[in-house]
Amino acid sequence: MKKFVNDPANFVREMMEGLALANGSTLRWIPEYNIISRADMPRNDKVSIIQGSGSGHEPAHIMMVGKGMLDAACPGNVFAAPPMEYCYECIKLMKSERGVLNLVNNYQGDRMVWDMAREMAEADGIKVGVVIIDDDVAVQNSTYTVGRRGVAGNWFVIKCCAAAAERGATLEELVSLGKKVNSVVRTMGVALTSCTPAAKGTAIFEIGDDAMEVGIGIHGEPGRFRAKMKQADGIVDDVFDAVVKDLPFKRGDRVAVMVNGMGGTPFSELYLLYRRVAQDCAKGGLEVARNYVGSYCTSLEMAGVSLTLLRLDGEIEKLLDAPAEIPIRVF
Amino acid sequence: MKKFVNDPANFVREMMEGLALANGSTLRWIPEYNIISRADMPRNDKVSIIQGSGSGHEPAHIMMVGKGMLDAACPGNVFAAPPMEYCYECIKLMKSERGVLNLVNNYQGDRMVWDMAREMAEADGIKVGVVIIDDDVAVQNSTYTVGRRGVAGNWFVIKCCAAAAERGATLEELVSLGKKVNSVVRTMGVALTSCTPAAKGTAIFEIGDDAMEVGIGIHGEPGRFRAKMKQADGIVDDVFDAVVKDLPFKRGDRVAVMVNGMGGTPFSELYLLYRRVAQDCAKGGLEVARNYVGSYCTSLEMAGVSLTLLRLDGEIEKLLDAPAEIPIRVF
Repeated sequence: MKKFVNDPANFVREMMEGLALANGSTLRWIPEYNIISRADMPRNDKVSIIQGSGSGHEPAHIMMVGKGMLDAACPGNVFAAPPMEYCYECIKLMKSERGVLNLVNNYQGDRMVWDMAREMAEADGIKVGVVIIDDDVAVQNSTYTVGRRGVAGNWFVIKCCAAAAERGATLEELVSLGKKVNSVVRTMGVALTSCTPAAKGTAIFEIGDDAMEVGIGIHGEPGRFRAKMKQADGIVDDVFDAVVKDLPFKRGDRVAVMVNGMGGTPFSELYLLYRRVAQDCAKGGLEVARNYVGSYCTSLEMAGVSLTLLRLDGEIEKLLDAPAEIPIRVF
Repeated sequence: MKKFVNDPANFVREMMEGLALANGSTLRWIPEYNIISRADMPRNDKVSIIQGSGSGHEPAHIMMVGKGMLDAACPGNVFAAPPMEYCYECIKLMKSERGVLNLVNNYQGDRMVWDMAREMAEADGIKVGVVIIDDDVAVQNSTYTVGRRGVAGNWFVIKCCAAAAERGATLEELVSLGKKVNSVVRTMGVALTSCTPAAKGTAIFEIGDDAMEVGIGIHGEPGRFRAKMKQADGIVDDVFDAVVKDLPFKRGDRVAVMVNGMGGTPFSELYLLYRRVAQDCAKGGLEVARNYVGSYCTSLEMAGVSLTLLRLDGEIEKLLDAPAEIPIRVF
């Protein structure tokens, strides 16, 4: 296993400890419940924004905690939903008079624990709103999902809801906004390699030297089909077509584009892929008003990419522009 | 070959085109000479800061062009120095009455082309200053190097010189500052896997399933020794010890720490590694005033990491704090 790891059982804990050590003045780490939160939250004049899902997708979602993004994140083990009692503690910790907004990626495991945690918190008198994120166009149902999967589009739902919360939006307004953003964001991914959770010690699926999985899930769930490797432009064209047709995006739409590396794909390849996405957008009459090229939602060290398109309007653009500060940064 | 690529001969060009398309309002791309520059440079009231070295290390160095960082970058093909005439064109393009500062990573190929380009530019009456970067403590001479190699510490030399240039420093002051920063920065890396240049189509070296290369160069040059894989903390301890002893860093020093992924290492592992670096710093009495965790100087899709320590003083800290804007960003 070619990974930097100590005892695989401590992988998530040690990653969180490193994150906390690197951000001592802004983040708080609660090891008993796997929670990373902003050190200055909660506040009764702002809805708290939280998320909790399996680890292995970093920077999603523990490295998205910070001003203008998540107020707290509560991950499970690699590719596993967090324990229900941790979710409950996370809601309680972020309790605010204005309420708590929980952004849930659509996986059965996550939905179950957060449903139970919400019920318990509501019994304590805490207002909890929920938005389900399901931006992956690849397949309708999947290994761990009824309905579509939540993948990299999650980033845009967090960014918009968190920015609106900083500006004083109510819980009801945020639920409505989150649903709106989710309704105009679409993603599809391609994997060239598998990945290896430390605790498993072996790859989560097998794939041939000249094969790729089109429509891959972020836990290695099967996509639409397995195909022979082809050139980058052809891969982009296929994925672009699937994403555009799904909403559908139309000529004249202003969009944000995300070219997201799956963990093992370097910047060089991501920009090479972006080139073709920009060409395809131009050809399809989509105006790219914003682009995001980097690793936002990964599958450990998988070599792969996903393409996300978000249809913009004035409200969403303003929210994407709002300042935010999170642990992943360049300077 | 598990890469996103079209014709391998176009890898660098298509990556640069993607970068230019993604940053149309701030960057200018000159395909004839492989140059990416700030759209608003040169200016006669500011020294221009340039760099040109092999591709394959992205974001170094074409994705470091922007306000407060490089004014222009001129890459070669993957792991190959740029052609001399491109270097010459790059200097001419960034010509300023205050001069041009060329930050050269210490590889024989880079030094040769930039020496010749500088002589030609000086014959044209352009003032050119040079700083050689050689922060890698692993080996004294190497496959492509007389003296030490320039690796991830390059980032800090660029950041400080570029910030000082924005504040009006002279060429002479910048050469002196660059040498000073280079004199207090030290790096060593470890590779778990090799990497594959698209044009070669096969890995640049072979490494066993349970082996790692300690002191790896960023072009796959041999390091200090090859060892059996071990746990992350042990790897960090070894690298930390080598880096600290080299300057040497001393108890009470304030430092910046960079944990740099080599292209195929995800954030999860980088933060797990940062945890141990922070512990080692605490044990050794080093105060970590700043940390940088991410992929800054890569070797294509190599799974690996390097650790850089920079000894801080008031001047360097202020320069690291200065605002900067480059293509790689999160928001």
